[in-house]
Amino acid sequence: MNAEIIAVGSELLTPQRTDTNSLYLTSQLNGLGVEVVGKSIVGDHAARLEAAVRLAAARSEILLLTGGLGPTEDDLTREAVAAAFGLKLLFRGDIAAAIERRFARMGRRMAEVNRRQAHVIEGAEVLSNDVGTAPGQWLRHGNGVVALLPGPPAELHPMFERECLPRLRDWLPRQVIETRVLRVTGMPESDLDQLISPHYKRFENPVTTILAAPGDLQIHFRARCETVEEASALLQQASGPIEELLGDRVYSRDGQPLEAVVGELLRRRKATLSVAESCTGGLLAERITSVPGSSDYFLGGFLTYTDRMKQSVLGVAEELIKEHSAVSGPVAEAMAEAARRLTGADFSLSVTGYAGPGGGSAESPAGAVWIGLGEASGCEARRFNFLGDRDRVRRLAVQAALEMLRRKLL
Amino acid sequence: MNAEIIAVGSELLTPQRTDTNSLYLTSQLNGLGVEVVGKSIVGDHAARLEAAVRLAAARSEILLLTGGLGPTEDDLTREAVAAAFGLKLLFRGDIAAAIERRFARMGRRMAEVNRRQAHVIEGAEVLSNDVGTAPGQWLRHGNGVVALLPGPPAELHPMFERECLPRLRDWLPRQVIETRVLRVTGMPESDLDQLISPHYKRFENPVTTILAAPGDLQIHFRARCETVEEASALLQQASGPIEELLGDRVYSRDGQPLEAVVGELLRRRKATLSVAESCTGGLLAERITSVPGSSDYFLGGFLTYTDRMKQSVLGVAEELIKEHSAVSGPVAEAMAEAARRLTGADFSLSVTGYAGPGGGSAESPAGAVWIGLGEASGCEARRFNFLGDRDRVRRLAVQAALEMLRRKLL
Repeated sequence: MNAEIIAVGSELLTPQRTDTNSLYLTSQLNGLGVEVVGKSIVGDHAARLEAAVRLAAARSEILLLTGGLGPTEDDLTREAVAAAFGLKLLFRGDIAAAIERRFARMGRRMAEVNRRQAHVIEGAEVLSNDVGTAPGQWLRHGNGVVALLPGPPAELHPMFERECLPRLRDWLPRQVIETRVLRVTGMPESDLDQLISPHYKRFENPVTTILAAPGDLQIHFRARCETVEEASALLQQASGPIEELLGDRVYSRDGQPLEAVVGELLRRRKATLSVAESCTGGLLAERITSVPGSSDYFLGGFLTYTDRMKQSVLGVAEELIKEHSAVSGPVAEAMAEAARRLTGADFSLSVTGYAGPGGGSAESPAGAVWIGLGEASGCEARRFNFLGDRDRVRRLAVQAALEMLRRKLL
Repeated sequence: MNAEIIAVGSELLTPQRTDTNSLYLTSQLNGLGVEVVGKSIVGDHAARLEAAVRLAAARSEILLLTGGLGPTEDDLTREAVAAAFGLKLLFRGDIAAAIERRFARMGRRMAEVNRRQAHVIEGAEVLSNDVGTAPGQWLRHGNGVVALLPGPPAELHPMFERECLPRLRDWLPRQVIETRVLRVTGMPESDLDQLISPHYKRFENPVTTILAAPGDLQIHFRARCETVEEASALLQQASGPIEELLGDRVYSRDGQPLEAVVGELLRRRKATLSVAESCTGGLLAERITSVPGSSDYFLGGFLTYTDRMKQSVLGVAEELIKEHSAVSGPVAEAMAEAARRLTGADFSLSVTGYAGPGGGSAESPAGAVWIGLGEASGCEARRFNFLGDRDRVRRLAVQAALEMLRRKLL
């Protein structure tokens, strides 16, 4: 079974943006044992879109389209797919009513243009959208299926997982694909690959791939078999020696991100956490609180972006900053200590550094970051030198702070 | 004149990688006044590649291919383009000799497979490659041109700029492209489109597109003319009435994001800002401090994720929370007031709400958010009801808070 993906939208043909939804969809399709054999990006242009749909549907069994389901006249996916298969678009009063109710819940009136979103290709099933107004569509034709999906990732992901995945599973020939994901932090991708590739290269099944983000590596194992038992055995054979080799550098075996793993460790201990952030400006707390239920262990914290705030809010001594500078171990420790004292939390994390592009000194250039960790028995601080732009330095600092706490909690 | 881009390579069809060369090529083509109307990604598969070339060359005057020029049997671009046009591939001894010399300079022998790279489509010009072994090719056909370019950016960029740009400039009629971007917040995409589409629909040049993100809309105008003056005049003609219609809902005319616009307004007033965040957990401060130089106006703030923190750190009265609940106007105002008082900032923003998925009450379900704004003359608070998942609610809350402050500073 082969799949093609068409991303729709003129904005995806500018120098600033490109389709990235297809990466998510490819990963989902691969998980079902389906290969993606072609991807296209088409602007908001009816004839070109219709031609692309016709070509793709003729040669691949599965065709996924993203985007072009909005309410405006630029949104042409419904029309183009209907035209490609010579089918009609039918107005569905129940969908229009649902969109109207959605607007009403926000205390607004549905604009007339939104009625466009209530048109469904004849014979298509409607894929519900809990996040936005655009419903998706699922159409079977000849030997294939076509899905019309929304462009915004926040709408696409839940719709694909709840509405498309089960339909694809039913429709595809039975085979089992089992996956295991190890997540690792604290080492560069090349070091990881050098360490583990002699092991995973011995296996064609499972297939092993490494995904890298700033400060975060994922090792994906995918086994394809007739039974779950067979697949699990193969996964264990391939990943077991690698898990042993990596030891506690593996922070998660089920895909959970670092902030969720740290949160779970805190929850189990019934311990609480607070933060004091300078150069990360809220990003550390934002990561921690992106986990639903984080109020069980996260109390809050302090954003002390200036030296004066470090003094007035956290009570860091002026002399300490003068003597060591604000980006130093003693100041990071004092910040962590204050965050604990002022909140009554069991643990605290502090970050102070130069995210760049400006700032810094000869000793502490942009990218120099001190991270402090406070607990009842005292504080410690570690220095990091991160390479990259402002955004990357901030991300790496947050990852390092969470990892310091994880190791403390192990 | 229209262009299409085909990226060749099975590795570009995995979940880990996608074509990004087309962003560079699009920017180069736009600079020449050429629109990119379609992009495709095709694996190392002769028949699919040949079909993609045939389709693209039939409908667009300019076709650029990247990748598939290497020495291995997977590298099929030369063969596929020749087949698509019914042309022969000719072996060129001079190219083989040049590749051989290149290997010799590195003290190596040319592998036999590299002879594949010395094959040129009949009638094509050779585009020299100073960085790698794969030469490019430039082929004129009927009313169009096709360029075969290498995949590695380090080879692609110099070859495009030195070998392709001059050829395209000679071949194309003279024209320029100018763009204008308006950014708008505080209204849904459908309302915006209903309001402005009667205006922009009157123009085929400039082309107008709307891009939507949570709480943030961008209106892109692109004019194509013979001179910059003409293009600017057309842009003004199309965007002028729309800017007037939208009034102060337009927060930026140069693509700057809202946090940068608010920062610039603060900087001009020499005013400072602090925050007190509950449900956004640091995301508001993170957005503000993502702007380089934000330490000129941002002092810091307080993350009071629990009721107790709101009391102990911000001094919000326990009775106030009991009477109105933590998600209420009075508490949002008290938080904003405390954030100002404790930091000495001129302005402060506070956010308290239920981001979901859990939490909330009958009166204030998940998505209910109060935003407070403090200044010397007093505090105000506004209630919002956002729809969507936790991440979306937090993003919308941050956008609304920044917009409240922007309007105050206007």
